[in-house]
Amino acid sequence: MGKLDDIVSLCKRRGFIFQGSEVYGGMAGTWDFGPLGVMLKRNLMNEWWNFWVDQRDDMYGVDAAIIMNPRTWQASGHVDTFADPLVECKECHGRFRADKLVDGATESITTEEFLAADVKCPTCGKKNWSEIKKFNMMFTTHVGPVADDSSIAYLRPETAQGIFTNFKNVVDTVYPNIPFGIAQQGKAFRNEISPRDFVLRDRECSQMEIEYFVKPDAWEESFEKLRSGQHEFLEGIMGLPKEMIHELEVPEEDRAHYSKRTIDFMFDYPNGEEELMGLAYRTNFDLGNIQRESGKSMEYRDKVTGETFVPHVIEPSIGVERLFLAVMSASYVEEDDRVVLKLPENLAPYKYCVSPLLKNKPELVEKAREVYDLLKKKYTFVTWDDSGNIGKRYKKQDEIGTPKCVVVDFESLEDDAVTVRDRDTTEQVRVKIEEL
Amino acid sequence: MGKLDDIVSLCKRRGFIFQGSEVYGGMAGTWDFGPLGVMLKRNLMNEWWNFWVDQRDDMYGVDAAIIMNPRTWQASGHVDTFADPLVECKECHGRFRADKLVDGATESITTEEFLAADVKCPTCGKKNWSEIKKFNMMFTTHVGPVADDSSIAYLRPETAQGIFTNFKNVVDTVYPNIPFGIAQQGKAFRNEISPRDFVLRDRECSQMEIEYFVKPDAWEESFEKLRSGQHEFLEGIMGLPKEMIHELEVPEEDRAHYSKRTIDFMFDYPNGEEELMGLAYRTNFDLGNIQRESGKSMEYRDKVTGETFVPHVIEPSIGVERLFLAVMSASYVEEDDRVVLKLPENLAPYKYCVSPLLKNKPELVEKAREVYDLLKKKYTFVTWDDSGNIGKRYKKQDEIGTPKCVVVDFESLEDDAVTVRDRDTTEQVRVKIEEL
Repeated sequence: MGKLDDIVSLCKRRGFIFQGSEVYGGMAGTWDFGPLGVMLKRNLMNEWWNFWVDQRDDMYGVDAAIIMNPRTWQASGHVDTFADPLVECKECHGRFRADKLVDGATESITTEEFLAADVKCPTCGKKNWSEIKKFNMMFTTHVGPVADDSSIAYLRPETAQGIFTNFKNVVDTVYPNIPFGIAQQGKAFRNEISPRDFVLRDRECSQMEIEYFVKPDAWEESFEKLRSGQHEFLEGIMGLPKEMIHELEVPEEDRAHYSKRTIDFMFDYPNGEEELMGLAYRTNFDLGNIQRESGKSMEYRDKVTGETFVPHVIEPSIGVERLFLAVMSASYVEEDDRVVLKLPENLAPYKYCVSPLLKNKPELVEKAREVYDLLKKKYTFVTWDDSGNIGKRYKKQDEIGTPKCVVVDFESLEDDAVTVRDRDTTEQVRVKIEEL
Repeated sequence: MGKLDDIVSLCKRRGFIFQGSEVYGGMAGTWDFGPLGVMLKRNLMNEWWNFWVDQRDDMYGVDAAIIMNPRTWQASGHVDTFADPLVECKECHGRFRADKLVDGATESITTEEFLAADVKCPTCGKKNWSEIKKFNMMFTTHVGPVADDSSIAYLRPETAQGIFTNFKNVVDTVYPNIPFGIAQQGKAFRNEISPRDFVLRDRECSQMEIEYFVKPDAWEESFEKLRSGQHEFLEGIMGLPKEMIHELEVPEEDRAHYSKRTIDFMFDYPNGEEELMGLAYRTNFDLGNIQRESGKSMEYRDKVTGETFVPHVIEPSIGVERLFLAVMSASYVEEDDRVVLKLPENLAPYKYCVSPLLKNKPELVEKAREVYDLLKKKYTFVTWDDSGNIGKRYKKQDEIGTPKCVVVDFESLEDDAVTVRDRDTTEQVRVKIEEL
């Protein structure tokens, strides 16, 4: 088993992440967060919001609906171009992403290139292929009581457009000074042909996106600030090791046509380097599209100079599940016959675990309960464990990343002190209860 | 204009809630939260999670995918019964909810009853009606590259089933002692035929649900505790006046067939009494359905007695938008030529607003900036306002519910004190900066 499998197994065993709809045999490409996973996910998302929005003076939040007017996706280009190359086996009618069947192929693979590669159907082994068709990855639904072309709507494939469509609303209600950003956290959906790689290629994910609006000629300064802010967030707040993060300057030929600069922040995941987040300068492409499609002005009037212009935008974008897996990967350590999740304290689901040394001694249990109540009141994220023996409890708390285990023993009844064991060093020190 | 219209107008004017996809003429039944709305919504949701999950020892969270295996909705009964009576005008092909066209009708209205009421089509005025059909309110989509019956999936119409389907996963990973609850916050979707009443009858909403698992013969005690907990939450944490909340004991004939007791918590909304939240004893109906449909045991083994049983469940369920509107309604006051949002301090988007008395005096601006930085560091939720004159600023801060306005004037430069104005009393007191 590789390290990714070990992490998937830990996630399931300890209640971080389960397969979606597991009880019914699953639902491919979906994942459910369990009790510990919700705690970690909330910590990641709240730290992000706190760092990027609450602590700053230049960021505003929005929370737009998932089902948007379909013209949104016409204007953004998603209806026409958000598609993967799909190929069908004419023998068994299996459908596949053409580029995934050919070594080194990209999403722009043509039927000729595909047929030249002479691949077998992974299901039936035959070589009788259809032409490549473009398969749009947006989930479609119908809104209202009539299911026809006029009622088609999409599940948003990104949160970004919920920000752009509200640009004018935000400007007209909070009158921000440029440069300023609008942030959003929320679900996005992609109908992946072949979901895979645990939470990395899923059909439903949570995104955290910022659109940072700037004067057209001043984008470079903001780009650099957001770039260094990402490092501060990923390394300082999320505790990801600097050496596991690699900036990939995306060359012009691989960038979206409207982007003048894009940096992908790559991370050393257990199965190799993968994109963790992106930072893209998107010019005024999106607001320009909305202006054209809606016929409404997306201009901003500078409060100081009085000039009006359609702002340009820089987009830092990160997936919660990708961040979650990065944090788990960086924290997961096997050493000395134990598995330890060395999560930064601000992210750990529980900060303390409190135990009585023996669970069948009422006086120990009572004293431990007092300590638990005290810590729970003070730190909230405190767990109680009186299962098995003390060794098993440490093993469990190591696996869920609890920084400190507090054990109440017979001596505690005399000296009002407890043993505090450190997760990372396994060192134990004696601490007065009042000093916890 | 009635009070609801005033609140809708304030929500739009001050950036709490915008019509969804407004820039494209809207998307019926969807709403977007703006900068101020996101802050209030986050406060509501975080206070709920803190009160019901983090502060307690008997609650665990899950965060399940929105797209679940469709067998979930077969087992729960939603595929067969989650439907509204739909009637079509044969002249203009308008489609309507039959029960909404007939005074006093319920969702169980029959074609005969409908025709007997002799109503005109609200669109064309004719009286040429189709039979009543049951219109299922679940949004449907297709998952994967083949769009046929085998790939149909639904957007979840409630968060509850994401809890029930994970019941075994939670029990097997965190080994809870019964009684215990599993909580979830997240989006739910209902394809309402006629969305209306602002956010009360929308197509996309956020729910906060708890399934509280109990021994079959011990449900009444837990029911009472959850019931009083709801009052504590709604009145103590959300600040809703006790006299605006009414318990409605749902009589047997109106309850779901499996429910032995249901209390609807009704709230005095501006347009009348409406359900704010529900508290229902659902027996073992849901876990029983899952057990039958999945063939997997949903039994819980009591750690003390060793007996095994399928737990019964009590469900407190609340919609975020309904709570949001309740809080807005209770806080919205018009008095002495001003509109004030008397939000409880824990819910107010900003706790302080800092202003220089005059914006064109650099020494005042500089001093006010110092005060702002100090308060921002301490309280985070602090806003800066130097627009218009001081009267306009108070007006704005009153409308967005900021409890305290801090004004730096010329005296401040001498005495290091500021004027602090109280939102509710409009009283102004002089306070030393260091004592803020």
